[in-house]
Amino acid sequence: MSEKKNAVIGQSGGPTSAINATLAGVIEGCLNFEGIGTVYGMKNGVEGFLREDFVDLGKYFEDKENFEKLCMTPAAALGSCRLKIKEKEQFVKIFDVIEKYNIGYFFYIGGNDSMDAVAKLEKYRAQERKDVDVKFIGVPKTIDNDLCITDHTPGYGSAAKYIACTVAEIARDCAVYTQKAVTIVEIMGRDAGWLTASAALAKEITGMGADLIYLPERPFDAQDFLNEIRNRIEDTKKPYVIVAVSEGIKDKNGEYAAKAAMSGAVDTFGHAYLSGTGKYLENLVREKIGCKCRSIELNLMQRCASHIASKTDIDEARMIGNAAVKAAENGKSGRMMAFVRENAPEYKISISDIDISEAANLVKRVPDEFISEDGKNVNEKCISYMKPLIAGECAVKYKDGLPLFFKF
Amino acid sequence: MSEKKNAVIGQSGGPTSAINATLAGVIEGCLNFEGIGTVYGMKNGVEGFLREDFVDLGKYFEDKENFEKLCMTPAAALGSCRLKIKEKEQFVKIFDVIEKYNIGYFFYIGGNDSMDAVAKLEKYRAQERKDVDVKFIGVPKTIDNDLCITDHTPGYGSAAKYIACTVAEIARDCAVYTQKAVTIVEIMGRDAGWLTASAALAKEITGMGADLIYLPERPFDAQDFLNEIRNRIEDTKKPYVIVAVSEGIKDKNGEYAAKAAMSGAVDTFGHAYLSGTGKYLENLVREKIGCKCRSIELNLMQRCASHIASKTDIDEARMIGNAAVKAAENGKSGRMMAFVRENAPEYKISISDIDISEAANLVKRVPDEFISEDGKNVNEKCISYMKPLIAGECAVKYKDGLPLFFKF
Repeated sequence: MSEKKNAVIGQSGGPTSAINATLAGVIEGCLNFEGIGTVYGMKNGVEGFLREDFVDLGKYFEDKENFEKLCMTPAAALGSCRLKIKEKEQFVKIFDVIEKYNIGYFFYIGGNDSMDAVAKLEKYRAQERKDVDVKFIGVPKTIDNDLCITDHTPGYGSAAKYIACTVAEIARDCAVYTQKAVTIVEIMGRDAGWLTASAALAKEITGMGADLIYLPERPFDAQDFLNEIRNRIEDTKKPYVIVAVSEGIKDKNGEYAAKAAMSGAVDTFGHAYLSGTGKYLENLVREKIGCKCRSIELNLMQRCASHIASKTDIDEARMIGNAAVKAAENGKSGRMMAFVRENAPEYKISISDIDISEAANLVKRVPDEFISEDGKNVNEKCISYMKPLIAGECAVKYKDGLPLFFKF
Repeated sequence: MSEKKNAVIGQSGGPTSAINATLAGVIEGCLNFEGIGTVYGMKNGVEGFLREDFVDLGKYFEDKENFEKLCMTPAAALGSCRLKIKEKEQFVKIFDVIEKYNIGYFFYIGGNDSMDAVAKLEKYRAQERKDVDVKFIGVPKTIDNDLCITDHTPGYGSAAKYIACTVAEIARDCAVYTQKAVTIVEIMGRDAGWLTASAALAKEITGMGADLIYLPERPFDAQDFLNEIRNRIEDTKKPYVIVAVSEGIKDKNGEYAAKAAMSGAVDTFGHAYLSGTGKYLENLVREKIGCKCRSIELNLMQRCASHIASKTDIDEARMIGNAAVKAAENGKSGRMMAFVRENAPEYKISISDIDISEAANLVKRVPDEFISEDGKNVNEKCISYMKPLIAGECAVKYKDGLPLFFKF
């Protein structure tokens, strides 16, 4: 039997509500695998790895309850970074540290950039350091759901659930008055409209929600938007209109809608004022139509409101973390873990792994077949795709009225 | 035994997560009281009452489960209004409708303006229509917690819980990077800082939260604010700073901080651009300090995020609704229901009723004894006051991943 090797796990990119569930899954897998000795956590992703800033993860999980607590803690518990490794010295240093700490398993949880980092490390190993026995495995996470090949990404379901729930609640709030009013909800996703699309679930499931949904996949036409609002605000039975809009909508020239309109606006410092997309549409409606209008930016809450995380998402995120260890156990390296949805009426997912260099640096947008004909909403096919991802509620533990979080 | 009289219930003012729990309590009380015949709901408060737009509430609650569903539905299920009754004809019309529908009990759930309406109706009855046997009872609700005499208002606890929970989650999100960054969280409450104060519960309970809390009860000094940020951002152990700020902070001249600074700023329409307070502070930090800074407006979610409602708040809101019926049964009129906190180590509330004319139109601000000496936070006394109000989680029912709401 071969000597034990150590494992290291890192988190990178923007936080999500599920990234710690994946971390829990990887840790669990490592602790259960005989072939692994110490399980290190790198603080702040490769940034911490490069400065050898490690946490001995094993000692935190002698109490198994901590896994549950970690799963329900938002944002990367090990810290995150935005560092892109590209310099030769960085690769050299990383392999030095790998050897120094006898690391045989390198797990990296992150989005597109992180998968790219793993792909590069694998390539470097294959080309320059074949002598080092280390497996590199990427585990996807991103609320944006814009990674290719995997059916969806861990983190998306919880963000989608937060958005759908919040839009449903906002719709109730907007419905109480008889005065005509427009509410614009600005949602994250610069290039892909998956998060904005999830606003459609509010009306689908609760009967009240967004009336119009503007994705970055379709060019935004301000005149057409104003016509839509005018027509809808005239509906006497329903005086409120709710619009879900991606922060990344662009006009037909590919210019951010808000940027194009706001050029020339300055603040008291004399600096160009860059309005958010929601605020831009709010001002547009107020100026051109004159009715009451407010905009709401869902902001960071989309990625950190773990108290309303999707159980499906959290369970799957933990599973995919666990599966990453299995893949490494089986000798795989340079792979990204991925969800495969079974082609069946009931939602069912299996976990697979794919060549990480195929997945990195590609953006998966909402496909044409998911967008309604007029381009201002999503269709039944998109709803069917999204609906199972927000299903189920987690048993969040509370203390004194607030969720219990885990801290290293 | 006297003939049965009918009851009518209305909701008014801004929505909260608990206003429907109070409605449920009043309906329950009315349906259980032999002396009441039909229980009407007025659509959109007195607006609906004036046009005789009523719902027969009894028939919706043969299934008792609907009470639970109503309790967990955000925003006024009967609709709301902002109408202030002041014209003589309005009073005449209201009493005509009262007689026409044989109404003996008039319950109105709302904030300051609504309590004022009830006080006026009682006064009009006493002065002009002593012949009409009708009891007017006001039941308070407001997320702002700014009503006098009552210990707190139904709706505040749930809003405070949402704010504290969200600030705790945001703190986790902010803590993942090593880059220095400031996050400003703008919270509702133009004149009273109760909601902003509740951000303090995040750090108190979860260990991470707002570092600075700016209430409208203290004049805001931009220079001092910048000094605070500068000092804190230099702390190498904790690169992030979180600021909770009331939308209503004013400078020493009583001018809204954001307004004073933004005068002169114009948008592309040439209109004065009125920034939110959070956005103003964000720009200020970015301009004067130059570090990464973002602002987050908690917006409508503060008053409608019923999925994270405080059980204490929802239970009490229902109880106070029930108690309102008891007060009317006992022949009281022109009263506002109020919470009285027992002077004991354990949190305990009893329900009382007070002369509504004493409570209406007064604003209860955060008292000096609750504010820290430097004026940039709240103290232990304030924490002790707020903490029990966010305690407990409601058993929210979900369908397909989203909360089940009630609809008339």
